Amino acid sequence: MTQRKSFGSDNHAGAHPDVLRAVMAANAGDAVAYGADERTERVTAELREAFRADSAFLVANGSGANVLGLSVLLRRHEAVICAESAHIDTDECGSAERLLGTKLLTVPARDGKLTPESIAERIPGHDDHFAQPGVVAVTQATEFGTCYTLAELRKVAEFCRLNGLRVYLDGARLANAAASLDCTLAELAECADVLSFGGTKNGAIGAEALIVMRPGLSDAVPYLRKQQTQLMSKMRFLAAQFEALLRDDLWRHNAARANAMARRLGAGAAAVPGVEVVHPVQANAVFARLHPRHIAALQREWFFHVWDERESVVRWMTAFDTTGADVDAFVCDIRATAAR
Amino acid sequence: MTQRKSFGSDNHAGAHPDVLRAVMAANAGDAVAYGADERTERVTAELREAFRADSAFLVANGSGANVLGLSVLLRRHEAVICAESAHIDTDECGSAERLLGTKLLTVPARDGKLTPESIAERIPGHDDHFAQPGVVAVTQATEFGTCYTLAELRKVAEFCRLNGLRVYLDGARLANAAASLDCTLAELAECADVLSFGGTKNGAIGAEALIVMRPGLSDAVPYLRKQQTQLMSKMRFLAAQFEALLRDDLWRHNAARANAMARRLGAGAAAVPGVEVVHPVQANAVFARLHPRHIAALQREWFFHVWDERESVVRWMTAFDTTGADVDAFVCDIRATAAR
Amino acid sequence: MTQRKSFGSDNHAGAHPDVLRAVMAANAGDAVAYGADERTERVTAELREAFRADSAFLVANGSGANVLGLSVLLRRHEAVICAESAHIDTDECGSAERLLGTKLLTVPARDGKLTPESIAERIPGHDDHFAQPGVVAVTQATEFGTCYTLAELRKVAEFCRLNGLRVYLDGARLANAAASLDCTLAELAECADVLSFGGTKNGAIGAEALIVMRPGLSDAVPYLRKQQTQLMSKMRFLAAQFEALLRDDLWRHNAARANAMARRLGAGAAAVPGVEVVHPVQANAVFARLHPRHIAALQREWFFHVWDERESVVRWMTAFDTTGADVDAFVCDIRATAAR
Amino acid sequence: MTQRKSFGSDNHAGAHPDVLRAVMAANAGDAVAYGADERTERVTAELREAFRADSAFLVANGSGANVLGLSVLLRRHEAVICAESAHIDTDECGSAERLLGTKLLTVPARDGKLTPESIAERIPGHDDHFAQPGVVAVTQATEFGTCYTLAELRKVAEFCRLNGLRVYLDGARLANAAASLDCTLAELAECADVLSFGGTKNGAIGAEALIVMRPGLSDAVPYLRKQQTQLMSKMRFLAAQFEALLRDDLWRHNAARANAMARRLGAGAAAVPGVEVVHPVQANAVFARLHPRHIAALQREWFFHVWDERESVVRWMTAFDTTGADVDAFVCDIRATAAR
Repeated sequence: MTQRKSFGSDNHAGAHPDVLRAVMAANAGDAVAYGADERTERVTAELREAFRADSAFLVANGSGANVLGLSVLLRRHEAVICAESAHIDTDECGSAERLLGTKLLTVPARDGKLTPESIAERIPGHDDHFAQPGVVAVTQATEFGTCYTLAELRKVAEFCRLNGLRVYLDGARLANAAASLDCTLAELAECADVLSFGGTKNGAIGAEALIVMRPGLSDAVPYLRKQQTQLMSKMRFLAAQFEALLRDDLWRHNAARANAMARRLGAGAAAVPGVEVVHPVQANAVFARLHPRHIAALQREWFFHVWDERESVVRWMTAFDTTGADVDAFVCDIRATAAR
Repeated sequence: MTQRKSFGSDNHAGAHPDVLRAVMAANAGDAVAYGADERTERVTAELREAFRADSAFLVANGSGANVLGLSVLLRRHEAVICAESAHIDTDECGSAERLLGTKLLTVPARDGKLTPESIAERIPGHDDHFAQPGVVAVTQATEFGTCYTLAELRKVAEFCRLNGLRVYLDGARLANAAASLDCTLAELAECADVLSFGGTKNGAIGAEALIVMRPGLSDAVPYLRKQQTQLMSKMRFLAAQFEALLRDDLWRHNAARANAMARRLGAGAAAVPGVEVVHPVQANAVFARLHPRHIAALQREWFFHVWDERESVVRWMTAFDTTGADVDAFVCDIRATAAR
Repeated sequence: MTQRKSFGSDNHAGAHPDVLRAVMAANAGDAVAYGADERTERVTAELREAFRADSAFLVANGSGANVLGLSVLLRRHEAVICAESAHIDTDECGSAERLLGTKLLTVPARDGKLTPESIAERIPGHDDHFAQPGVVAVTQATEFGTCYTLAELRKVAEFCRLNGLRVYLDGARLANAAASLDCTLAELAECADVLSFGGTKNGAIGAEALIVMRPGLSDAVPYLRKQQTQLMSKMRFLAAQFEALLRDDLWRHNAARANAMARRLGAGAAAVPGVEVVHPVQANAVFARLHPRHIAALQREWFFHVWDERESVVRWMTAFDTTGADVDAFVCDIRATAAR
Repeated sequence: MTQRKSFGSDNHAGAHPDVLRAVMAANAGDAVAYGADERTERVTAELREAFRADSAFLVANGSGANVLGLSVLLRRHEAVICAESAHIDTDECGSAERLLGTKLLTVPARDGKLTPESIAERIPGHDDHFAQPGVVAVTQATEFGTCYTLAELRKVAEFCRLNGLRVYLDGARLANAAASLDCTLAELAECADVLSFGGTKNGAIGAEALIVMRPGLSDAVPYLRKQQTQLMSKMRFLAAQFEALLRDDLWRHNAARANAMARRLGAGAAAVPGVEVVHPVQANAVFARLHPRHIAALQREWFFHVWDERESVVRWMTAFDTTGADVDAFVCDIRATAAR
């Protein structure tokens, strides 16, 4: 790895300066712990309003938000339907199964998106031998850097409502989706019963929010959060991070910047002979197919992950602090490498 | 609550300025996520050395460290023996039961300390109807602000070794114990198989370490940590906090200061007629019995918790940033209140 | 152990001849598996009617019924309040914690019975650090061979209703209670939201029923039962056992016989100098204090368990097939032993 | 459904008369509960010897045996690799996930059989984001009525040994495999670390055995069995069932009969134009493709399940009590139906 900008993950970026400043400011004096402080109350009220939600809770990380969110929605015996590419299935080490005892029923999903038709495939009859889905988990923006349109999301939500399924939305990159679709957080949220709103990939040190839309579920969240070890004691420091991200819609600016850099990278790479961009670039990720030899050569100078070795597909992520110069230098090297 | 220093919890204090500075410094440039960065490797190596441990892992909070630590030591069917006052039993909302499925076998424990004799009471025969303890969980410093002497701790460890039990040590306030006993972290740790080392109550924003002493256990920890949602993505910021606490033994200075303030408060309060200090003040907590009317009067001006309403016992905690002036003002008010 | 009647447990008895005959009769021809056969439908309908219940399900054993019953009632984050003597806490190896992740909040309970006052002791405030009880588990007849009166049971139920708690009733010996109180099963059941009805200790080979009283809970039971491995494939053979026990109230005759034998034994033992019966004999158990030397002497000829070694208290159980001659011979030996 | 022999499941058959006789015989007198009786000790010793095993335990049903067996082998954080057709994944309502918190990593498996190559596909790198398999679960005979040859099984076992994976063998129909391969139980068992041996589908009322081959694992089984509610109190009645099945290898005769009937049915059906037998008939199941209209017509007279509606494939099971006349009548109707 070099000193060059990492395209490996939006987690490789540090924190936005405004976030750090807010954390410093929050350090003054004593504050009641575990979220009973004024800053946390103010910030969660802001979140509630932005999402037109029933309640909002701060948690430490994205896996924590996902497991907590599912636990709020799942009846004790129920399973979860999700895309084969869903982070909860592929990248959380079996956390949902371990902590909730739930089974994940995966669905092949082109571009990472579920549809009413693909969900329907995994709904079994009411036979006590078959795991019964209770929740459908969608990711927005998806793990492939695509976004459901609002219409697509509403179709999924409507199908779920008619079939007695609840919707959990993994919003680790919800900001990127909102920026991409140029819509409000509330418009995205109204399609879900519970969702997460990711701060970490958007410029926070480490902070996520769980947003509860459906009334009647909020009372259990504090206990579930504590049991799942997602209750932080000096909560003011989580609150401060969201304070900064919410102020003047910093979250949207950060996401829009990352998205723009991904589009720039996608367009630049697509123009290189021998490089194929395999998913629409609708958020802050570019998935591209290159010759394995070119991948290896590029990885000597740049940090990024091979997504699918067999398919020779890589993933390039941009972040809130990726610059046009970073992208241009990278595209230049891609072009030079592919030409060899 | 007033602007006066809180004696409610060591979690009410903010972060030490050096910790914040280290976090700022860690923000420069990109860093690989999930603990593969150089700073995390350096800090966990330092921890390993300080504890003469097999391995060290950073986690987000104390409940997370406790559940993770128990999970490393427990066989699938086993239960945990702990004191009735143990944080894992009383204050974590049933997290160990929920996430690990383990049963907690509690022991009445004077001053919060287990002994070989009291542990022996909860070891049943090998009958498959009875939950079989596999781990003994001790807290050092205890929830009552007392400390096991090294000799006491070694007796417990020896008893456990002879009886096929492993020792988990909840070290949310291990720094306070090390400062109180004037011993090294390694001396405390050698009595445990796995332990936590708390940063949060010692001046961190929110960071704890899990220390694995017994060889052969470390390989599973990364997976258990991820499953239990205690793996933070931008790990450099956790590492930075410990970097600051470990530099020039800041952790020990912070703990010593908090301890000294508790002793000052304990001595001051004990000298007030009508106030009884009910546990030895060996760390940063003072437990005192006052008349209920005096408690109510004091709580109008100062923030602290009633520990046992029936016994009319309160808990006063000091922190790394409690000053002599804070304590003296508080003692002055205690005296004035008790005199009314 | 000798060929003499065991007073060790009502599980030491075999099956009632009528039960075996019903099992033989059920063997004719094929039958759909997993409870979709006509016999199971008929028997569960009979149970539903006898209990005036919403639904009834057959399961393999008592621990299975208890865990299943609790799982039907508990919200995901909730804990259970039960007596310190409750079988689920003392004799099921931590099964409820393991399979449900729930915490058991135990209450000291004289004669094994909970009261509104003792339950109230374990209800904490709505603080997310404290495990929140959702279910109160009572045992009827209790583990001490006592019975709640209907009035006592109703008081507990009413208190629970007012405090948002649900009632699970462990009815492993419900038949003994119904016989003792001379009441119907429905009268006992109306105090519970879910209860078990034990067949095994009443003369079955191995069969228990789970009875759901509160509407709106039954739909999840088949899935929970299957997940908890309590769904038997050749269900007709469980159904046949209850068919026999329900026919002409065989269950009540069996229970009444066992109860009568316990009363005879209790009265006989109480009349022996040096023997103290320590709990009212209201079902099929006698708890007695004897000199340790006499206990040892008796155990050379008779099979029974020491209940509390420190208190020198033994437990003697009678069963549906205990005879007056068995009891008289035993009392005779008790008398002879105590006289030495 | 008619009075005709069911081809729906080997669970639709009743119990073998010898099994019922043994149960009757076991009813004489009292017996210590929970498996400490002489009959259970004798029978488990016989099982141990037949399998050349470390230990043997009786449980109530097949799902219970599977979950228990996996729990003995899995480290706390580990996942299970199994075929997509594995009963634990498709037909146990998510029991393994629910009770063990483990993730099932499924593998497409032709004829239901895993191979070293297909297993290798699901072994990820040592990255804490990926669920780490610890156990490979094979089924013998498979859910498709095929059998691994001993050579195939040994290859899987050897691959697992070399890759640090343990082998659990779901032997719900192990008897059918042993009869089909004409091998001993010990020859099958030596390829596994833990396996189940099914009695229920072989003519029992309801009884399965868990066989532990690998030394050092047996001590935990009693506690795991109790926690998982698979410990039956009047264990003598489970023991009696295996007593009957083991006497003069009744289990082998029963399995051989069922297998022979399946071969007869398979051969008969395969000779009918328009009927395609889609898997080799190596145990007691026949999978056949028929025209949907013919399936519907046949189901009006005979009981069996459609396995794959889209593929128009049905499953026909034979049992220990299926007769040649049953099969011939069925084949006759298949022929007549297909001719219409």
